[in-house]
Amino acid sequence: MTLALTLLNLAKERGAIIATAESCTGGMVSAAITDIAGSSAIFDRGFVTYTNDAKIEMLGVTRHSLDEFGAVSEQVAGEMASGAVQQSRATVAVSITGIAGPGGSDFKPEGRVCFGISTGNQVRTETKEFGPLGRDNVRKAARDYALTLLIQQLS
Amino acid sequence: MTLALTLLNLAKERGAIIATAESCTGGMVSAAITDIAGSSAIFDRGFVTYTNDAKIEMLGVTRHSLDEFGAVSEQVAGEMASGAVQQSRATVAVSITGIAGPGGSDFKPEGRVCFGISTGNQVRTETKEFGPLGRDNVRKAARDYALTLLIQQLS
Repeated sequence: MTLALTLLNLAKERGAIIATAESCTGGMVSAAITDIAGSSAIFDRGFVTYTNDAKIEMLGVTRHSLDEFGAVSEQVAGEMASGAVQQSRATVAVSITGIAGPGGSDFKPEGRVCFGISTGNQVRTETKEFGPLGRDNVRKAARDYALTLLIQQLS
Repeated sequence: MTLALTLLNLAKERGAIIATAESCTGGMVSAAITDIAGSSAIFDRGFVTYTNDAKIEMLGVTRHSLDEFGAVSEQVAGEMASGAVQQSRATVAVSITGIAGPGGSDFKPEGRVCFGISTGNQVRTETKEFGPLGRDNVRKAARDYALTLLIQQLS
């Protein structure tokens, strides 16, 4: 069973409604969820916040966190996930912000992706180093990990 | 050259900034655009408005249009595209709302997809009948057609 189908069934069981807040994956997570017929029962909306302005305006990410920690940080991932629950009708939201590549820096290498998961009351964040797998593979790995985080959250 | 790469080059040439407003494609258009390295120069944000509430709250689609014409209509597609330009920093936005299937009705068959394209000043809408190709194929056809509309608009 695909991750998205597992998630769909689980969300239905739990009565959960999902939102997504994506930067480097650019809509791949919402696309994967809505790939499954019947997803309208458990998916509310997705925020594809590619620019910093979009993160601030759509999700209420703070300029301070962007300046202090950068867009690829657990602080920003957490604010993205929290904002996605607040600015939607979802009960749970996942966020993804990372360096898909090509390129990176000494401080933030290609393949680093920060995730957040929020249920409104609480937010949890995590950083994964997928490594320099190439843009396409980093994005796919990040998409699948975001789906996995949602599944874990609802399990 | 892929549609997304053609679009990226064209948008750079024209100094255009893109936003997307997606219903049935669920983020596939923004995912395709951001698949290309360098897309951050021309892509601002995406609105994945899967529910009616999301269309109203994120894009300012009117309850009247949803009630009167339904979510899959040129009226709603037009309001989605206009809303996406207004609620972003983009100079051009494309919208997609359709019946990916499975299923449909006598009034709105599977494979019908409405598109909107807005530059702020003007909005243009169109309906395509992709036919009952299956959910996956309808979504891919709609994604590619949305990219084509953006390319046409910028050409």
